[in-house]
Amino acid sequence: MSDVRIDDLPVRDELRGKSPYGAPQLDVPVRLNTNENPYPLPEPLVERIAERVREAARGLNRYPDRDAVRLRTELAAYLTKTGKYPLGMANVWAANGSNEVIQQLLQTFGGPGRTAIGFEPSYSMHALIARGTGTGWIPGPRGEDFTIDLAAARRAIAEHRPDVVFITTPNNPTGNAVPPETVLALYEAAQAAKPSMVIVDEAYVEFSHGDSLLPLLAGRPHLVVSRTMSKAFGAAGLRLGYLAADPAVVDAVQLVRLPYHLSAITQATALAALEYTDTLLGYVEQLKSERDRLVAELRAIGYDVTESDANFVQFGRFRDAQDAWRRILDRGVLVRDNGVPGWLRVSAGTPEENDAFLDAVREVKKELEA
Amino acid sequence: MSDVRIDDLPVRDELRGKSPYGAPQLDVPVRLNTNENPYPLPEPLVERIAERVREAARGLNRYPDRDAVRLRTELAAYLTKTGKYPLGMANVWAANGSNEVIQQLLQTFGGPGRTAIGFEPSYSMHALIARGTGTGWIPGPRGEDFTIDLAAARRAIAEHRPDVVFITTPNNPTGNAVPPETVLALYEAAQAAKPSMVIVDEAYVEFSHGDSLLPLLAGRPHLVVSRTMSKAFGAAGLRLGYLAADPAVVDAVQLVRLPYHLSAITQATALAALEYTDTLLGYVEQLKSERDRLVAELRAIGYDVTESDANFVQFGRFRDAQDAWRRILDRGVLVRDNGVPGWLRVSAGTPEENDAFLDAVREVKKELEA
Repeated sequence: MSDVRIDDLPVRDELRGKSPYGAPQLDVPVRLNTNENPYPLPEPLVERIAERVREAARGLNRYPDRDAVRLRTELAAYLTKTGKYPLGMANVWAANGSNEVIQQLLQTFGGPGRTAIGFEPSYSMHALIARGTGTGWIPGPRGEDFTIDLAAARRAIAEHRPDVVFITTPNNPTGNAVPPETVLALYEAAQAAKPSMVIVDEAYVEFSHGDSLLPLLAGRPHLVVSRTMSKAFGAAGLRLGYLAADPAVVDAVQLVRLPYHLSAITQATALAALEYTDTLLGYVEQLKSERDRLVAELRAIGYDVTESDANFVQFGRFRDAQDAWRRILDRGVLVRDNGVPGWLRVSAGTPEENDAFLDAVREVKKELEA
Repeated sequence: MSDVRIDDLPVRDELRGKSPYGAPQLDVPVRLNTNENPYPLPEPLVERIAERVREAARGLNRYPDRDAVRLRTELAAYLTKTGKYPLGMANVWAANGSNEVIQQLLQTFGGPGRTAIGFEPSYSMHALIARGTGTGWIPGPRGEDFTIDLAAARRAIAEHRPDVVFITTPNNPTGNAVPPETVLALYEAAQAAKPSMVIVDEAYVEFSHGDSLLPLLAGRPHLVVSRTMSKAFGAAGLRLGYLAADPAVVDAVQLVRLPYHLSAITQATALAALEYTDTLLGYVEQLKSERDRLVAELRAIGYDVTESDANFVQFGRFRDAQDAWRRILDRGVLVRDNGVPGWLRVSAGTPEENDAFLDAVREVKKELEA
C-alpha cells in the first residue's frame, strides 16, 4: 500500500509539490523556536485541570456545550479586566487555536472569489489558511524596518479592495507592534475600499509595552480582535484561540463552525487555566523583562534587533541566516529561521535558557567575523 | 454594539439567511436525539483520564505532538484488532471529530471548482462541510426503502463525475448498512468516471451486525474509511474522529490540516479511552441488543421501522412527523426530527430510557389513531 505518492492522488492542483507547515520538532537542550512559554503551569493549576477534567469526563458520553457559554463568559471577563473595555459572552467566540478562529473567519468573510491581504513578513499561517479556504492572498507591503508604511498600505488596500485585512500586532516574526492610529487608518481605508473585515491578530499582546486594541471595537462592527491562550497562559498544548468582536460577527462564524468543535475536555481545561490568570500573568511579567534583556544584550553583542513587544526577538543581520541558524543549533540552542532574509527569531526562555542562547550567539558572532 | 445583524456584515452570499446546524439542546428527562452513548465512562477510566491529563498538563506550555504519533499508533492497533485488517500508524489520521476529518478531506480532494456526492437522506454534515469548503454538492439518489439503488447511483456518478463520493454505512439517519458489494461497485464507478476519492463514513460501524469495510482498503488508494470515538467509545464530548487509508492520503491531508490541530489534552484523553476498549465494547453489545429490542417492539406496536445496524432506529410513518415529535417530547422524551418526511429517529438509550420511549410512542400511536 505504501508505493502511492501524494501526486498519484486526485489532490487539488495548488497542493501539488507542497510540504506541510511546521517548524522542525528537534530534541535539543534549549528550544527557543516556537514562541512557547518556557514556564510549565504551576502544580496547583495542574491539579485543578485534573479535577475539572475528571468532572467533565463523567459526562463525556454527551456532546459538549456547542456554544461554550461558560468558557466564553470567563474569556470575556478576562478581556474586560485586562483590556480596559467591557465585553460580554456575546462578543466572544472560541475555537481549537487561533488558527481555527482565523479559518472560521475566512470561511465566513473570505473564501472562493474573495481575497485577503496581510503585510509581510507576518504570521505565515494567515496566507496558508487563506489558501486552505480558497481565499485569494495578497502579500501587502511592509517597510525596510518592518513597520507598516501607512501610505503604501493604504494604496495596496485601495488597489486590491480585499475582503479581509490582517494586522498582526505585535507582529510575528518581527516582534514590533503596530501603532493604534495606523490600525485605525487601515480600518478606515478598508471600509472606504469595500467595506472589508479587519482582523487584528493580538496573539502576543499580553507581552506588549502598550495596551490591547480591544477598545477600538466600539462602533466598529467590521473589526475583529483574535487572541490565544498559547502564549500568555502558557498553554500551547491546549489549542485554545478566541476572538472578540461585535455579537453579529460571533453569530456569523457560527454558520461555518463545525458543530461541537470544542471538546468538553478543552473547555474544562481552559476554564481551569482562567482561574489562575493572576499567577500566569506574573510569568508574563518575568518574560517581558527577559525579552527586554535579550534586546539589550543582543545589541551590546553587536547584533541588529527589531523593537519587540512580543515574547520573542528578531535579530540579525546575517549574510546567510540559515548557516547562522545551524551554528546556533550546533551549540544546543534551537531558534527559528522564518525565511526573513538576514534575520532569525528567538523566543524568550527562562533566564538560564536565555543565557545559553546569548553565549551561543556571542560565539557565533566571533566565528562569523573570524 | 448589538444592533448589527449578520446580514449587515460582508458575509459570503451563500451564508445569508442561513441558521447554524445543530439539534435543539433541550433539558428533558430522556434525551434520545443525538445518537449519544447513554452509558457514562466507567469510573476507573475517568480516573485514568484525570491521570493522563495531569501528566499532559505538566507539559502544556509546549505545543502538542503535531503528528499525534502515539495516538495514531493506538488507533491503528484498535482497527487492526477489530477490523480484521492490519493497519499501522501511517494509515491513520486523527482530528477534532470526524467532522474535521471530513473537512480536511474536502479541503484536499474537493474545494472550489470540484464536487462531492452523497446519497440522501444521509449525514447532513457532509453537504454542510462541502458548502463550508466551497465544494459543489450533488444530492445523490436513494430508494424508497432507503437502500442505495446501485443502477441509479452509478448513473448519477457517471453523469456528474464527482471528485468525492460519500457512502455512509451504517447510514445516518436511516440506520441501514450498505452491502460491501454495493460499496465496491460504487468505488469502481467512481474510478471509471474521474477517478474520485470515495469516503466511507463508518461512524456507527461498531453497532453493525456485519463487519467493517476496512479490508476493502487493500489496493484501493482512493478509498478512505472515517471513524469516530463519539459513539462506540462513549466519548461524544471528546471530539475525536479519525480515518484509515493509504499512507499517501494521510500525507496529503497534512498539507491542509491546521498545524497542532489536536491538543495534548485530547490526545491524552483518547489514549486513556483506548486502554479501556474491551470494557467500552461491552457497552456496545448491550446497546446492540437494546437497538434490536427497539426495532422489534416498535414493529409490534405497529410502526414501520427501517432495518438498523446503528445505535439508533428510524421509525414512522407519520402524516406529520413534526407533530409526532412534539407529542413524544410532551411525554418527556426527546427524539430527532431529521427532516425525512414521515419519519423520526430515536437513539438507543439505557433499558429504562428505551422503556420510557416505548411507553410514549405507544400512547402517541393511540392518540393519533383516536
